Amino acid sequence: MNTPASIIPQLQQTQRAATAVRALSGSQKTDLLNRLADVIIENQAHIMTENHRDMERMADGDSKKDRLFLDNKRIEGLADSLRQVAQLPDPAGQVVFEREIEQGLKLTKMRVPLGVVGVIFESRPNVTIDVAALCLRSGNACVLKGGKEAYFSNACLVGLIHGVLTEFGLPTAAVLLLPTDRHFVNELLAANQYVDIIIPRGSDALIQFVRQNSRIPTIETGAGVCHTYVESTANLQKAVEIVVNARVSRPSVCNSLDCVLVDAQVADAFLTALLPDFNKWNVEIFADETAFSIIQKSGYPHLQVAQEADFGREFLDYKCAVKVVSGLDDALTHLQIYSSKHSEAIVSEDQTLTDRFLLEVDAAAVYANASTRFTDGGVFGLGAEIGISTQKLHARGPFALEKLVTEKWIVRGNGQVRW
Amino acid sequence: MNTPASIIPQLQQTQRAATAVRALSGSQKTDLLNRLADVIIENQAHIMTENHRDMERMADGDSKKDRLFLDNKRIEGLADSLRQVAQLPDPAGQVVFEREIEQGLKLTKMRVPLGVVGVIFESRPNVTIDVAALCLRSGNACVLKGGKEAYFSNACLVGLIHGVLTEFGLPTAAVLLLPTDRHFVNELLAANQYVDIIIPRGSDALIQFVRQNSRIPTIETGAGVCHTYVESTANLQKAVEIVVNARVSRPSVCNSLDCVLVDAQVADAFLTALLPDFNKWNVEIFADETAFSIIQKSGYPHLQVAQEADFGREFLDYKCAVKVVSGLDDALTHLQIYSSKHSEAIVSEDQTLTDRFLLEVDAAAVYANASTRFTDGGVFGLGAEIGISTQKLHARGPFALEKLVTEKWIVRGNGQVRW
Repeated sequence: MNTPASIIPQLQQTQRAATAVRALSGSQKTDLLNRLADVIIENQAHIMTENHRDMERMADGDSKKDRLFLDNKRIEGLADSLRQVAQLPDPAGQVVFEREIEQGLKLTKMRVPLGVVGVIFESRPNVTIDVAALCLRSGNACVLKGGKEAYFSNACLVGLIHGVLTEFGLPTAAVLLLPTDRHFVNELLAANQYVDIIIPRGSDALIQFVRQNSRIPTIETGAGVCHTYVESTANLQKAVEIVVNARVSRPSVCNSLDCVLVDAQVADAFLTALLPDFNKWNVEIFADETAFSIIQKSGYPHLQVAQEADFGREFLDYKCAVKVVSGLDDALTHLQIYSSKHSEAIVSEDQTLTDRFLLEVDAAAVYANASTRFTDGGVFGLGAEIGISTQKLHARGPFALEKLVTEKWIVRGNGQVRW
Repeated sequence: MNTPASIIPQLQQTQRAATAVRALSGSQKTDLLNRLADVIIENQAHIMTENHRDMERMADGDSKKDRLFLDNKRIEGLADSLRQVAQLPDPAGQVVFEREIEQGLKLTKMRVPLGVVGVIFESRPNVTIDVAALCLRSGNACVLKGGKEAYFSNACLVGLIHGVLTEFGLPTAAVLLLPTDRHFVNELLAANQYVDIIIPRGSDALIQFVRQNSRIPTIETGAGVCHTYVESTANLQKAVEIVVNARVSRPSVCNSLDCVLVDAQVADAFLTALLPDFNKWNVEIFADETAFSIIQKSGYPHLQVAQEADFGREFLDYKCAVKVVSGLDDALTHLQIYSSKHSEAIVSEDQTLTDRFLLEVDAAAVYANASTRFTDGGVFGLGAEIGISTQKLHARGPFALEKLVTEKWIVRGNGQVRW
């Protein structure tokens, strides 16, 4: 691979390509994505060969190995995902409103593509396909900066995308895969003249780095420090099922549970009911003093006293903080300090307290009597997502197709002036 | 005034106050703003006395003096603005959609207040009232960092706001006026735990400083380098009226014109028609080579050859760049390089070329046959604005009440889990 001295010439080409992508009709974009799905299926063997080259370079036992791996089933998943995105409604071109303003001027507010979307991600090659699909569907060009470890897989997939772009008469620069060298990340983050939005997708360290160094507006798809508050009127059987599911069903994802807040009135009964299930999964509990003394009595084997840093901590593992609270206000205060504003749940049969929780908790998603694991673009009916936004501007919660647009004000007149 | 060592305790109070503001009903917010309008009118003499203290500290001939000054008419304007905002529809609390998702979970997407809005601004005391009104109307608390030169005016106005907040049983921390010391700006910009959004309103230097130093998501209300393209089929009389209006009607504002692009086919006729009007206003022209030779022939007295830096320059004065282009594509290329993506216009009688311009130009507002001076929240029917956003995320164009909200996903279940 020839590494260029600067990626700016490539970014300029991608900016120009964005004009061609923006001009595609909705049905052309559908056809393009369906064709790409076919091409992916036709080239399964080739994709697996290239993926194997990446897999061989990675050390055995590396936890990223599973994320990197592509087999027939996963490749079919990529094609399915493309076909699904192809069917989603086109978010660009919609007229949000039309209004006649002063002097007969005709004002139209229209949704339009963002332009060039940059995504920086780590080892999962499916991100390459998901991002390209969402960007093309919404009329955007994209710049992809993937991880070194997925180089051959990503290059192969982008090669297939380029073939389809060419078939449709589009410049291949519409989907730009950057060299993996790290220093190009800095050049990308400074290129606010050519790139309209940056989405870091990966570890907290990556997200922090991008936030602190980007001159381009950023969507943070951040960490999830998720709580479930077991209120005093909770159906305790449901509460146990919800808490266990939220913690162990997929421990490494951002919508999984990190901390249980349990009302003092039911702490004994709830924790006693919870522990056998947590024990099955060897969940390590970090308990505040009150919870510790309750749990200790039962002889639970994976117990330790919570340190301050265990609250507000995203475990991404079979680990869970537990704190006994005196009621809703105490729980709300805890959340105001420790919540990462991702997904927060209450389990309660009291409608008034439930409504207060749903209203007052400041988070992207708030739940009553359900597991926080449902926070997901697909589950919410938005199609594939690029991540879960924990910031409040532009997009909050699942960042999906409908947010890959901006607005444009169009004013048509016949000579009007404003003195 | 007692200057605290740190503003963090104040910001924490404001964050708590945000909960109280969020809980207000729409009609309570209307009443509060109307009451504040009355209080402003009742206290006109007091406001003018305090404003006079600021005016006296400012040097004669300081260009900021007019922005700072408050008289009866301007104070009545503040009250009128409050009453107008009081009547605007409440942007918070609206249900964007409701949907039943898997397992019978009920999903609601609702608009909710952002929380705490921070605004950093310079000498105009009316910003204090506008921002407080828009934030309270939308259920937000706010943090105001005004300029030193308006200290007495701002303190007086915020004192009146605090009186009304107290009457309505709200904590005065809901509208926090920070000390004017500059170093508190840095503390504010790092306080992403307490402040949800920062809006710099003022000079380009201020905006750049905030963008580069803020850890809080920022709305850029940026510079406007606005162009008008006089296409070959343009009605030249309308073109002259539009260009003159856009340049001279209010030269210091961001939607005023900075550069005329004129098609070579009509350059001679258009410029000859334009010059007498420009001469009346002593508009200084920075012309490219071709335009220079045309204008020079007419003996126009305020003419010089444009340097590269005169394109893409926001003049904010009776100054204007002029460039002759070979057609629409040449104009679009110029815009892609030099536009600040604020407001751009075409004057043309050709519908196809006009539509291409409106579609392809990447700007917050695009105009056909009208002055760019109409880009304004009030004119667009949005009520008072905090500024014109030139970025693409969250808000583009006039940043007004409807954008002072975020979204929240609410999920109601009865025990659902996701394995």
